[in-house]
Amino acid sequence: MEGVDHLAHERSKAQFDVDQMKVVWVGSRHALQVSDRIARLVASDPVLRKDDRTMMTRKELFKNTLRKAAHGWKRINELRLSEEEASWFRHYVDQPAYTDLHWGMFVPFIKGSGTEEQQKKWLPLAYKMQIIGCYAQTELGHGSNVQGLETTATFDPKTDEFVLNSPTLTSSKWWPGGLGKAATHAVAFARLITDGKDHGVNGFIVQLRNLDDHLPLPGITVGDIGMKFGNGAYNSMDNGVLRFDNVRIPRDQMLMRVAQVTREGKYVQSNVPRQLLYGTMVFVRQTIVADASTALSRAVCIATRYSAVRRQFGSENGGVETQVIDYKTQQSRLFPLLASAYAFRFVGEWLKWLYTDVTQKLQANDFSTLPEAHACTAGLKSLTTSATADAIEECRKLCGGHGYLSNSGLPELFAVYVPACTYEGDNIVLLLQVARFLMKTVSQLPSGKKPVGTTSYMGRAEHLIQCRCNVQKVEDWLKPSVILEAFEARAIRMSIACAQDLSKFSNQEEGFAELSSNLAEAAVAHCQLIVVSKFIEKLQQDIPGKGVKEQLQNLCNIYALYIIHKHLGDFLSTGSITAKQASLANDQLRSLYSKLRPNAIALVDAFNYTDHYLGSVLGRYDGDVYPNLYAEAWKDPLNESVVPDGYREYIQPLLKNQLRNARL
Amino acid sequence: MEGVDHLAHERSKAQFDVDQMKVVWVGSRHALQVSDRIARLVASDPVLRKDDRTMMTRKELFKNTLRKAAHGWKRINELRLSEEEASWFRHYVDQPAYTDLHWGMFVPFIKGSGTEEQQKKWLPLAYKMQIIGCYAQTELGHGSNVQGLETTATFDPKTDEFVLNSPTLTSSKWWPGGLGKAATHAVAFARLITDGKDHGVNGFIVQLRNLDDHLPLPGITVGDIGMKFGNGAYNSMDNGVLRFDNVRIPRDQMLMRVAQVTREGKYVQSNVPRQLLYGTMVFVRQTIVADASTALSRAVCIATRYSAVRRQFGSENGGVETQVIDYKTQQSRLFPLLASAYAFRFVGEWLKWLYTDVTQKLQANDFSTLPEAHACTAGLKSLTTSATADAIEECRKLCGGHGYLSNSGLPELFAVYVPACTYEGDNIVLLLQVARFLMKTVSQLPSGKKPVGTTSYMGRAEHLIQCRCNVQKVEDWLKPSVILEAFEARAIRMSIACAQDLSKFSNQEEGFAELSSNLAEAAVAHCQLIVVSKFIEKLQQDIPGKGVKEQLQNLCNIYALYIIHKHLGDFLSTGSITAKQASLANDQLRSLYSKLRPNAIALVDAFNYTDHYLGSVLGRYDGDVYPNLYAEAWKDPLNESVVPDGYREYIQPLLKNQLRNARL
Repeated sequence: MEGVDHLAHERSKAQFDVDQMKVVWVGSRHALQVSDRIARLVASDPVLRKDDRTMMTRKELFKNTLRKAAHGWKRINELRLSEEEASWFRHYVDQPAYTDLHWGMFVPFIKGSGTEEQQKKWLPLAYKMQIIGCYAQTELGHGSNVQGLETTATFDPKTDEFVLNSPTLTSSKWWPGGLGKAATHAVAFARLITDGKDHGVNGFIVQLRNLDDHLPLPGITVGDIGMKFGNGAYNSMDNGVLRFDNVRIPRDQMLMRVAQVTREGKYVQSNVPRQLLYGTMVFVRQTIVADASTALSRAVCIATRYSAVRRQFGSENGGVETQVIDYKTQQSRLFPLLASAYAFRFVGEWLKWLYTDVTQKLQANDFSTLPEAHACTAGLKSLTTSATADAIEECRKLCGGHGYLSNSGLPELFAVYVPACTYEGDNIVLLLQVARFLMKTVSQLPSGKKPVGTTSYMGRAEHLIQCRCNVQKVEDWLKPSVILEAFEARAIRMSIACAQDLSKFSNQEEGFAELSSNLAEAAVAHCQLIVVSKFIEKLQQDIPGKGVKEQLQNLCNIYALYIIHKHLGDFLSTGSITAKQASLANDQLRSLYSKLRPNAIALVDAFNYTDHYLGSVLGRYDGDVYPNLYAEAWKDPLNESVVPDGYREYIQPLLKNQLRNARL
Repeated sequence: MEGVDHLAHERSKAQFDVDQMKVVWVGSRHALQVSDRIARLVASDPVLRKDDRTMMTRKELFKNTLRKAAHGWKRINELRLSEEEASWFRHYVDQPAYTDLHWGMFVPFIKGSGTEEQQKKWLPLAYKMQIIGCYAQTELGHGSNVQGLETTATFDPKTDEFVLNSPTLTSSKWWPGGLGKAATHAVAFARLITDGKDHGVNGFIVQLRNLDDHLPLPGITVGDIGMKFGNGAYNSMDNGVLRFDNVRIPRDQMLMRVAQVTREGKYVQSNVPRQLLYGTMVFVRQTIVADASTALSRAVCIATRYSAVRRQFGSENGGVETQVIDYKTQQSRLFPLLASAYAFRFVGEWLKWLYTDVTQKLQANDFSTLPEAHACTAGLKSLTTSATADAIEECRKLCGGHGYLSNSGLPELFAVYVPACTYEGDNIVLLLQVARFLMKTVSQLPSGKKPVGTTSYMGRAEHLIQCRCNVQKVEDWLKPSVILEAFEARAIRMSIACAQDLSKFSNQEEGFAELSSNLAEAAVAHCQLIVVSKFIEKLQQDIPGKGVKEQLQNLCNIYALYIIHKHLGDFLSTGSITAKQASLANDQLRSLYSKLRPNAIALVDAFNYTDHYLGSVLGRYDGDVYPNLYAEAWKDPLNESVVPDGYREYIQPLLKNQLRNARL
């Protein structure tokens, strides 16, 4: 960040305390200090450079990833980093690797599903990285339908072992990260079969590779599934394929916290309630929501800075042209995404609290709020990841042609992000789970059962189905209570309409299938209400720092009014607002954009991203875009020679031959 | 297409004559025969294989592209292909190359902007490929604002030459395809300066490279601008950077059809009207709309076939699972895109007619319909390319996890397609041009000036602003007149609302800037009306073949009702339909999906794409997806060795070291 700051003038316009906003963004002053220190550490490490990544072959990229992982592990140990610091370190390395699955899935799953003895045996090995673990669930033929997995683990009482098999082609494990080349062990999911009886899907710890030479063990076929979307991106990961041919493992490698198989081959449920496993799911999905706000904020940071650098049109008399960020069309596409980044941040923060709350209740054997928490995390995972994937691409388009260059950072950000819409629950499948929960909640309203948590507004159904929005002038749209009620009215009216339509079907499942599209829309409405209400709740907290709260209020209003505009059909068709009120909301939105404009650069500076982490010539902190784009171009391998490889064979003869298509 | 056809059962359900639909899709029986023959020719040529493309380095990929281009040119000449056949050949090679710009921009531009002598001199060289041309317009600092280009061409009367210069870094030519490594010549755009006076931007033919050794000529700096989005995709193209340092060209290399510089350095407008140049723009944009329907149809073909292959859930008792194409959520996302592919096809066909019509009128010095034709092509370019880019990604998501694999074909299709939203007019800039035209048309209504062509509905403004939609039951939504009126009412009411809001501003330009977002939405509404009305017009033609017309009717209704659902806020807030009618439209849409379902596979078969052209394991004609996904995986370079490169350096030491973060 040396040299001239081309965005200094933009920064001088900010009407709030940027440092305080950084604290708000990352969650605490402590987290800011730690993350800032680790980010700089990673950025200054030459082994961890990222700018050459998109030019590597798959093999080079993978080797580079192994190198970074080993180097990272070395540094983490040398510097004696805490778990929190190590996690920030891996985050800022910013390159998908087998370690993500080892630390993010293998270890937590053993913690959640292993008995105490199993944890004692396996966790120390994993913590020291004497073994590398992956999470082998998805198969070629089954993703969303986990209960449909085909791999079998048949108990053999003669040897006290399980025999793992892949009975069909479609039962091949397919997709698990780290499996292809790196992992030595897997938590593998298979149908547990004892004495000819199928007990459904369970997890097993299976060694895949020899610890001496890394060769696959007998009966194991394993490899990488091939190139994925984009250059760089997720191609650093060895998503793998795995087949079992009579692979034997000791009985004690079945993860036995909630169910066991005895020496005699008897299947026994333990006294640990199965619901405990849902805790892990809530945890994983909560991190996905947090990651969504991070990915979105990166894209928005790049697009916002570049929109202030880029000028186009607006100068008929030879003067300086207009910054594209000053165009209302640009603002109306960009600023709602900036607001969404903050909105998702706060709902993610709240989900973290929810996870703690659920965990405590589970430990006290209180399962009452679990269905609501489960629906809520599923819905927010779906909502935030879909919105983020779309938003990254929109940010790329907002950068015009130059956004298409790899070094804008946006193509790789998109390619690496989009799987979030599919993994850990396909987003549509998740919305239908939410819808099912909403229909159940609606059906129980007449019985007087009080809806809890994020569905508690449904307890006010009578009011919400007949209330009228109280907006008469533009400023009325700034009232949190007005916004909230509009969102609540829309959500509950859509849910109730679905319930009424469903009741016309004699077969409820058929009705659910037929109306699934409407049901998914009702689920979206419910989830957007959650995001808005958590943002509003955040604003009711004490937020120090000059002007910080005002900025957040502005962002909250922008998010809410943008959603109203985007889903206007819902709000109007349910009568939650009128066409006149919609028009006032739109007018208000435009004036909120004007209020945001001078603060735009400072609001993305508050994400506190280093140029290394951002990885974008367009999003450079100093705004010095054009000289750097120009300099980067010459680094492409194609520019190693002035005359390209292939000229003699394929261009020179063409120019000399003077062929001419006779009929042309 | 040997072996078992796993989709045979699907194909047997079709209720229409697929061969006749192929004719409708491609335009004529003759076009079908030609395109089919050339497609098979290309598919069977081993030099033109595409399946290894995403695994190549940039240099390998570029060399491979040069090879394909040279091979293609050789084959075109050997087989004495006609211009039509040669164009299909290049189309099916399906790999962006310098030839696209040579034939698609360089040649047409010389035809359109060169004098007769200039055409006589340059076109034969281009036709024989003795020179390779590119189109150097965009600069690092200027894309949309062509009038803001900075490159200068100063006339030197002493030597009768133009001197080309790149006065600033931002004036570097940036993006032109073929420029980086292949082209020997460019049509370069520069500000024409004679005697110290700036005459604005003009085109010049500039030789870039020596024809003997391909080295850049003195004063010319040229190279590739680096990696772009995705693997494979547009990285086969050498988009380039170019700087001029006092490069001299003879005066007669200024393209002088509409303006000349005399020997004395006098700038003279010719008697050829400048508007003629717009003809080229209409032509280029018309091809972009045609390409949109092609790209969209490829994505839809892949997603539809795979949705019939893929099964998930729906089998609790061990039977076969449900095909995902049978889920309403899948149908409600997929079928509108299938309908859009057909809708864009027909509006593209109509644009081709419009181009001929405009050309004839221009030649007769009739410029009256040009503004309307210009607005209409600009708007349709914007609408169809934006919708197609989104739709390709939606199709990828509809393929679940496996859509993320490169060999699904969808990532590359997306990456190669998205620049269409930016090039030849940024889509938002184009919508604002349409909006400007609409505002002008509205403002002239009181004077009684009759709107022409696609705006003629505005002549019925009085009726359309007070009419009420006549839908009372579900079936009413099948009436073309009802649909058309709803779209007309929505479009004109949005335009008039914008005009009224604009009139409140004392400064019209300020008002236009402030309301630009609403104006862009009004433009979209107008363009969607055009698409719907051209589809309805198509259906009024005589369409032979059993059941073909019925299928098209169904697709037309799906497209229209889908747009109503998607933009419901517009239709409701303008009062063009009621909430009750919207709900009926939705019910109708669901039953249209059921009608489409048995015909889905046949409707994508009608695109008549070879497996080579489609380039997707998921979209294979025979539906034999899983064994081929499995086989493809092993071809990844990462699978060349069982133990990965990097194991000894970066995995083995890690496993042996037994490091453990003390604080972990």
